[in-house]
Amino acid sequence: MNVLLVYAHPEPRSLNGSLKDFSVRRLKDAGHAVQVSDLYAMNWKASLDAHDSLEPQDGARFDPSLASKHAFEHSLQSKDIALEQDKLMWADAVILQFPLWWFSMPAILKGWVERVYAYGFAYGVGEHSDQRWGDRYGEGTLAGKRAMLVVTTGGWEPHYSARGINGPIDDLLFPIQHGVLHYPGFEVLPPHVIYRTGKIDEANYPQVSDALGQRLDRLFTTAPIPYRRQNGGAYTIPDCRLRDDIAPDRVGFAAHIE
Amino acid sequence: MNVLLVYAHPEPRSLNGSLKDFSVRRLKDAGHAVQVSDLYAMNWKASLDAHDSLEPQDGARFDPSLASKHAFEHSLQSKDIALEQDKLMWADAVILQFPLWWFSMPAILKGWVERVYAYGFAYGVGEHSDQRWGDRYGEGTLAGKRAMLVVTTGGWEPHYSARGINGPIDDLLFPIQHGVLHYPGFEVLPPHVIYRTGKIDEANYPQVSDALGQRLDRLFTTAPIPYRRQNGGAYTIPDCRLRDDIAPDRVGFAAHIE
Repeated sequence: MNVLLVYAHPEPRSLNGSLKDFSVRRLKDAGHAVQVSDLYAMNWKASLDAHDSLEPQDGARFDPSLASKHAFEHSLQSKDIALEQDKLMWADAVILQFPLWWFSMPAILKGWVERVYAYGFAYGVGEHSDQRWGDRYGEGTLAGKRAMLVVTTGGWEPHYSARGINGPIDDLLFPIQHGVLHYPGFEVLPPHVIYRTGKIDEANYPQVSDALGQRLDRLFTTAPIPYRRQNGGAYTIPDCRLRDDIAPDRVGFAAHIE
Repeated sequence: MNVLLVYAHPEPRSLNGSLKDFSVRRLKDAGHAVQVSDLYAMNWKASLDAHDSLEPQDGARFDPSLASKHAFEHSLQSKDIALEQDKLMWADAVILQFPLWWFSMPAILKGWVERVYAYGFAYGVGEHSDQRWGDRYGEGTLAGKRAMLVVTTGGWEPHYSARGINGPIDDLLFPIQHGVLHYPGFEVLPPHVIYRTGKIDEANYPQVSDALGQRLDRLFTTAPIPYRRQNGGAYTIPDCRLRDDIAPDRVGFAAHIE
């Protein structure tokens, strides 16, 4: 199968760098084809702006969504954007690997999402009407592909537990897993989170990498998180709320899991 | 009072640009001193890397936290970072204004957080021991200051409601409000969220700006979100979990609000 690893850490000789190299080897050894988007090494442009279109700037008011739509439809996207979209279309599975910085992905990776997720590619796809609110949340361009987060954090696991002060890790990752991955159609696997990275040394690294390796071995067999599909009948359209008779006692992120 | 407005939108002639200008006028008219960090206009460097320190690169392994700590302690930070820290210290209140892109802040603003929030400035502050897990979550360098988010989104309010498909807006903003603002000490005001921006035109703009204006008028009187203080007795240290006798039936983000 084809696997795209999108990787965001500035130092190759870091835990993240080692785990990235490990993952590539493990996946290739299993017979997969692997491409890596090493965002720092690529000097990825993080900030979305008018220069993301090849169309000459005429001083017109820049509307991020409309400019993205126009560039996507007319093959006027900056080449770096189009290349990443090609990689996404090529991939059967996509892994986003990053250190958790301030409870989210690094800016360089957020900018990859913002620029690569064009209007017409990752959003604004499908019919928008009173009956159907676009092909999103389980449908869309990337439907049928799998995605998984590999996340490192210096913090302790209990700090990210149900009553931990940082908030539960699954809730912190929901805007990414549900909002960035499920939205354009990915099936999202449970994340692989590595805590307390400051305590990882040569002695326990084999354990750490082996745990990741086992997740990679099951990349195409692990059951995805059962996020509900927007157009599967559980939501009213166009207000996109869970129907009253669906999990009537639940609110918040967890309500969107079957 | 002193107000810092950190603003992230690429187009001055946008709704966000208009609201930013409106806010500056409104705050000045009320007698406040205002500074604006217009990140796109400043061509803010979004990606944290080894060049954030003025120290010559000697090819050593780059550790983001240790490099930040060293640069902060030895006045070796890149000048753009030090200037933003100065603005934060000057401010009595900080407003972060941005469009919600993929359920979080734009990459350029995330990069502002990552680079300006140095080790020793916004994290790694205070004693870390079995009795005390640093000055954070209600204590720290920015304690005593207020912060508020001003957020625009094209989405509909019901999509962000308790059972809306995007997830409740307060939960989507928790990693920012609690993790980025409460963490280094800010008192965090309820956010001002403007929905369905595509429907805002000249006719209803006065209503939209007036609603924001009223929030700005109450910037120093609105009650903050009562996030619990880490070192206020509600959490066990060092595992930073809510004590069993505190809100025993609650889990998740909401458990951290008194």
